[in-house]
Amino acid sequence: MSLIRQDPSTKEWVIISTERAKRPHDFAKAGPSLASKAREAHCPFCPGNEGATPKELYRIPDAKGDGWTVRVVPNKFAALSPGGELRRKEDSALFREMSGVGAHEVVVETPVHNRSIPLMKDAEVEDVLLTYVERYRVLREDPSIRYIIIFKNHGEAAGTSLEHPHSQIIGTPIAPQHTRRKYAVALSYHDDTGRCLYSDIVAAELKEKDRIIEETGRYVVFHPFASKSPFETWIVPKAQQPSFGQLSRGEIGELASVLKKNLLALYHGLGNPAYNFIVHTASFEDETKPYFLWHLQILPRLTTIAGFELGSGISITTVAPEDSAVFIRDIAASLRSKN
Amino acid sequence: MSLIRQDPSTKEWVIISTERAKRPHDFAKAGPSLASKAREAHCPFCPGNEGATPKELYRIPDAKGDGWTVRVVPNKFAALSPGGELRRKEDSALFREMSGVGAHEVVVETPVHNRSIPLMKDAEVEDVLLTYVERYRVLREDPSIRYIIIFKNHGEAAGTSLEHPHSQIIGTPIAPQHTRRKYAVALSYHDDTGRCLYSDIVAAELKEKDRIIEETGRYVVFHPFASKSPFETWIVPKAQQPSFGQLSRGEIGELASVLKKNLLALYHGLGNPAYNFIVHTASFEDETKPYFLWHLQILPRLTTIAGFELGSGISITTVAPEDSAVFIRDIAASLRSKN
Repeated sequence: MSLIRQDPSTKEWVIISTERAKRPHDFAKAGPSLASKAREAHCPFCPGNEGATPKELYRIPDAKGDGWTVRVVPNKFAALSPGGELRRKEDSALFREMSGVGAHEVVVETPVHNRSIPLMKDAEVEDVLLTYVERYRVLREDPSIRYIIIFKNHGEAAGTSLEHPHSQIIGTPIAPQHTRRKYAVALSYHDDTGRCLYSDIVAAELKEKDRIIEETGRYVVFHPFASKSPFETWIVPKAQQPSFGQLSRGEIGELASVLKKNLLALYHGLGNPAYNFIVHTASFEDETKPYFLWHLQILPRLTTIAGFELGSGISITTVAPEDSAVFIRDIAASLRSKN
Repeated sequence: MSLIRQDPSTKEWVIISTERAKRPHDFAKAGPSLASKAREAHCPFCPGNEGATPKELYRIPDAKGDGWTVRVVPNKFAALSPGGELRRKEDSALFREMSGVGAHEVVVETPVHNRSIPLMKDAEVEDVLLTYVERYRVLREDPSIRYIIIFKNHGEAAGTSLEHPHSQIIGTPIAPQHTRRKYAVALSYHDDTGRCLYSDIVAAELKEKDRIIEETGRYVVFHPFASKSPFETWIVPKAQQPSFGQLSRGEIGELASVLKKNLLALYHGLGNPAYNFIVHTASFEDETKPYFLWHLQILPRLTTIAGFELGSGISITTVAPEDSAVFIRDIAASLRSKN
């Protein structure tokens, strides 16, 4: 019989259905193949094609100074655009509408067409994360933006058709309901207990041990109790840090190493799977409140979101996080022993 | 510039981003091809292979009486199973867990391997919907079940690998958060206005006209103002009917004709697209309350749910519902003129 678990951060339910008897290694070799070339003539993100993107917003220059290691450009097909006036149409409670003001940026993570994060050096991943924090801080000052979401789509099943490693930053003029809900749950927990829900989740996972992937000086990595998909992975800071914008240089460096190592284990364990990762951070007005911790969520896209999930919000996960954690810890150990 | 719209039934936001300049006909011919044969030797749902499924729960016999037109069987890989005791583990607010008690049934919609709903006669679709209502009423009496969700996955992009036309019914021992939220929004609207949110949405859509697909004696069909995906379609009853279990025989007959016609327009307009449909109905305890209307939501799966959507709950829709409605009305008119 399956198990039903509640995600303590959203109160949403998840069905852990091992009746389908998928074992962790059944998911291996499901992913997209790597791009064969380090440079593609028609790729808008490869060096030499900088003119194919809208005007650059930010770059980290390379050592020689004439090239770059990371570039940020506006998304050519932007969902939201900066600079306009936010007009709200309020004439009906049923048809609330506003203009699509905000920001939609692309972070080109590397000049190399086929070097995705698990294959980068730690210092290269650090440049990507430094860029996230840098752009977060710039967009944070835009008065039309209320919330910033940083995410990555890797592989077609995760929603991208572009091979060149890139991630995206969207600044929205409204706080997403999803974020409000996470906050409401965390605030209610704080009212009840006087403690931070996310710190307590981390402490409880560390105590139970079996879903933990690793603990470093500053971070804890685990497959959450109510995982929404097989191999869902959370990276959570140990420090009381609600906003991703608060990361120090040292914290960014350690996060780069942790993120790369965990994506590398998924890369080897599952054969370069399609995945999304998402940085969940506090709303601007809640950045200093003690209810929340920013966290990075990795969601491998190994199964399809179907009618039941869309209709109920309840996920069906076919591998228990306790089992996927054993599998990934073994992969990580074998990678360490090779080095 | 794009538009941001609020779904009045969930308060969630949607970005209508036509910057990507997808026009309705750009989505045509995206879908799975039809199964070539009316019977497949190894299909567990084809006649003659009844032994390949778990023990049958219900059938509508065919005219001759030795075969069937619709069959219901337990899902072989059931996410939830009947008959067990519901054990809740409550020792920690962070790790709430219960046993996977409930129901997970498959409705085999037709004996014919390659006859999906748009290709059926109205009377055949009526048998499918009669079966839904029949099973709803049976599961409604199961004391372990709190909520029933009826849905269909068509095509791989919608989450099924089985070609033979089928839909599913899941009875959960908990009310989904998603449903609770829809109810909370509807109740708050009722408190504010004294009216039913869903009736008001239908009336407002009829008044604005441009997203309406059709109005029949008992139903209104439209592409909702804040569509979560291109060509999202709602079928809503005009009568004050919170629960799908309340449908009369006459209402089922008319719904069959409306559902078939609308799936046929999508079938022709988009080239047999992958889609989900979901019946949203009241929780058992709210079946007689005047806040809600059951509704059938069709979600063509033309784009991939990516990191932004998963992280924020905000959808990005690349076709405005006003434009998709024009396209589908034209297709429906040309189908009528052919008959």
